[in-house]
Amino acid sequence: MAAMNPDAVARAFVDHYYTTFDVNRAGLGSLYQEGSMLTFEGQQVLGSQNIAAKLAALPFGQCQHKVSTVDCQPSGPPGAVLVFVSGALKLSGEQHELKFSQMFHLVPTPHGSFYVANDIFRLNYG
Amino acid sequence: MAAMNPDAVARAFVDHYYTTFDVNRAGLGSLYQEGSMLTFEGQQVLGSQNIAAKLAALPFGQCQHKVSTVDCQPSGPPGAVLVFVSGALKLSGEQHELKFSQMFHLVPTPHGSFYVANDIFRLNYG
Repeated sequence: MAAMNPDAVARAFVDHYYTTFDVNRAGLGSLYQEGSMLTFEGQQVLGSQNIAAKLAALPFGQCQHKVSTVDCQPSGPPGAVLVFVSGALKLSGEQHELKFSQMFHLVPTPHGSFYVANDIFRLNYG
Repeated sequence: MAAMNPDAVARAFVDHYYTTFDVNRAGLGSLYQEGSMLTFEGQQVLGSQNIAAKLAALPFGQCQHKVSTVDCQPSGPPGAVLVFVSGALKLSGEQHELKFSQMFHLVPTPHGSFYVANDIFRLNYG
């Protein structure tokens, strides 16, 4: 997977991340590691366990992410990729979609995969 | 400046960046280096000279950025900071503001300052 170009890594990750979020949110925890950081609407959370707990405790159940744009750039350690996403979030039972922006810093693991070292999420209030 | 915490670095950078953008856009070029990358509305630009040229050639003159949120996390090389901004952009002569999101990866220089290694900008169409 180290030979994949950043665009392919970003696309594959974004597909996997939001599908997992929408159908099996508890599965997201394994994408993070001990030193991973999440900033969700300004709240900072450190480490995969705390991040998984934070995502599980978000005040909405079923939801659906629609991705509008995915930008990426190589950055940091060799093979690492910055991913910048814009999209909309539809909550179950709600009419309106919420626009969001999110960035991830993906860092390669020794096993040929990637983990999320950094994750920052913001709703874009209109 | 290496002793500054990431929040202080992010705040100082964001103030400096958007003030410079709004009053002296040509001055932004010096914030980037040879290997810096800008992705502006999906268009990729490499290197400080090309980035400065891209910013100078944007299809609007005077503008005003209003920053709504600034999030940051340490990332990558020691002292490096990821900065995630949301805000609004008001173009001269236009009534409406354009919402935007932007991220920067700031990397320390040997001289105790920071340069922009990565910059991704997107308008948030509502």
